[in-house]
Amino acid sequence: MTAEPSRAKGIWAAALTPLSEDGQIDYPGLIRHIAWLLANGCDGIALFGTTGEAPSFTLEEREAALEAVVAGGIAPERLLVGTGCCALPETVRLTRHAVGLGCAGVLVLPPFYFKGVADDGIYGSYAEIIERVGDTRLRLYLYHFPDMSGIAISHAVIGRLLQNFPNHVAGIKDSSGDLDNMIRMARGFDGLDVFAGDDHLLWPVLEAGGVGSITSTANIAPHLLATVYREWRQGTDAARAAQAMLKAVWEDALLHMPVTETLKAYLAHETGNAAWRNLRLPLVSIGVAQLGDFIVKTEAAGFRLLQSQKEVL
Amino acid sequence: MTAEPSRAKGIWAAALTPLSEDGQIDYPGLIRHIAWLLANGCDGIALFGTTGEAPSFTLEEREAALEAVVAGGIAPERLLVGTGCCALPETVRLTRHAVGLGCAGVLVLPPFYFKGVADDGIYGSYAEIIERVGDTRLRLYLYHFPDMSGIAISHAVIGRLLQNFPNHVAGIKDSSGDLDNMIRMARGFDGLDVFAGDDHLLWPVLEAGGVGSITSTANIAPHLLATVYREWRQGTDAARAAQAMLKAVWEDALLHMPVTETLKAYLAHETGNAAWRNLRLPLVSIGVAQLGDFIVKTEAAGFRLLQSQKEVL
Repeated sequence: MTAEPSRAKGIWAAALTPLSEDGQIDYPGLIRHIAWLLANGCDGIALFGTTGEAPSFTLEEREAALEAVVAGGIAPERLLVGTGCCALPETVRLTRHAVGLGCAGVLVLPPFYFKGVADDGIYGSYAEIIERVGDTRLRLYLYHFPDMSGIAISHAVIGRLLQNFPNHVAGIKDSSGDLDNMIRMARGFDGLDVFAGDDHLLWPVLEAGGVGSITSTANIAPHLLATVYREWRQGTDAARAAQAMLKAVWEDALLHMPVTETLKAYLAHETGNAAWRNLRLPLVSIGVAQLGDFIVKTEAAGFRLLQSQKEVL
Repeated sequence: MTAEPSRAKGIWAAALTPLSEDGQIDYPGLIRHIAWLLANGCDGIALFGTTGEAPSFTLEEREAALEAVVAGGIAPERLLVGTGCCALPETVRLTRHAVGLGCAGVLVLPPFYFKGVADDGIYGSYAEIIERVGDTRLRLYLYHFPDMSGIAISHAVIGRLLQNFPNHVAGIKDSSGDLDNMIRMARGFDGLDVFAGDDHLLWPVLEAGGVGSITSTANIAPHLLATVYREWRQGTDAARAAQAMLKAVWEDALLHMPVTETLKAYLAHETGNAAWRNLRLPLVSIGVAQLGDFIVKTEAAGFRLLQSQKEVL
């Protein structure tokens, strides 16, 4: 399940960022979490996406954590790094840093403060990032998450980017929840690797020619995603069971809850390591009732955290 | 029309940020613009709000520009500085910087990437900023602009902040367009100075006990806002005429257009200084037709840029 050296594919976890009680990034905890995910079904890790609370950290914090992860033995070609900021010079800085470390690629939100931005502005932002980074090694993945960023990346923008930067624009993570959009992109754009942003959509996105998923449920269920990825084409019983479980855990439960908060509370509960509950403001820990709701729903579906994850974290 | 030394009130312009052709902040242009606004009806300037394209600049760019403005002779007590970032340590840094320079206050967006954030998270974010800045001089103005930030600041949050930080939480700029919300805040919260974020709402907000406005139309019509502010109580003909003009320029025209883009294009057109068109991505200049629409609408209402502004900019 090794990804090609030059092109990410398969199961990538939108990794949680473990924190100390005073809200600092816990490097050893992050490295342990990533190493376990890579050993248990993940082809790679999307560091500093939405689930990883990226926008809550300073540029310096994001750079230092990435350096610590690589220094801690995680191969950079297994890392996609979220680098999209509101200020383009900051996106350029983080992107150069990740590319310089040899990461597989960067996952880039459009500038997300201003709403109703013209397509020319979204296209222009990505074009400026690519041109200013100016590095042949750059592999850029568009991060389409209109519910959170408030900005939709249109097919017109994608088409222009692929035409003008075919060696740099490598793919897209679609967190819109809109399967039809994912299918149309997977079928319609040559050279655009489409990653499902929803766990239960991995299967239909693969059927449409997509290359994998970048999702948050992968933090607790990488083995399920890996099973679907490996066996969907054969339609094995194991693949169907994994698909049903992903639907129960993601579509029927987590998707309707505060995602990062619930995942962290769940890991704290299951591993006995209370530090997992720590979040950076503006996120705050969920209550017992909300966590209980998640546990009841997922246990009813038969979901359990793997024993090895309970032990390592 | 001088503001009290310790408390902002009256007409504050959400200042545009003039840029060079390569997108760098034009310090002399910014200082000239601010000085003209202060000499023509504005009590103060909100630097680096939405109209000023704040989120598109790095921390270093924002700090350097503020220092240049103060070094250029603009009294810091005439400045409210936008400092709200997604990452709280960055908000703390910019806030400390503005407070250290003696600015009248800071105008602070809540962290604006994550949506659906719990009230505890919004309250906690502001509380952490205030505590970490830890400076008795801090006067913090909440920046309520749900359409842009995606985050509404509830009355429950405002009440808790006023109760726990009465010496620091000084007011709010309400850019929601919801007059009822502004009136309820102006009447309901002691010690909360309410600024209208819409030009045509200055009058009713003053009637309800609000203290003034922080708006973008002030960039081209500070004299109209100043007339309403000075004469609304007497209900003079001049005040009524100014009010009607503000409605025509703001509510009937600018509000439905890309605000910063239209104001910059208009100033470029009227002053003959093409540099006014420069914007930082993701914003892009509007076309001739859109600008023409604005000019037709405002000229039909009898609006003209003051001759002195045409000459100075």
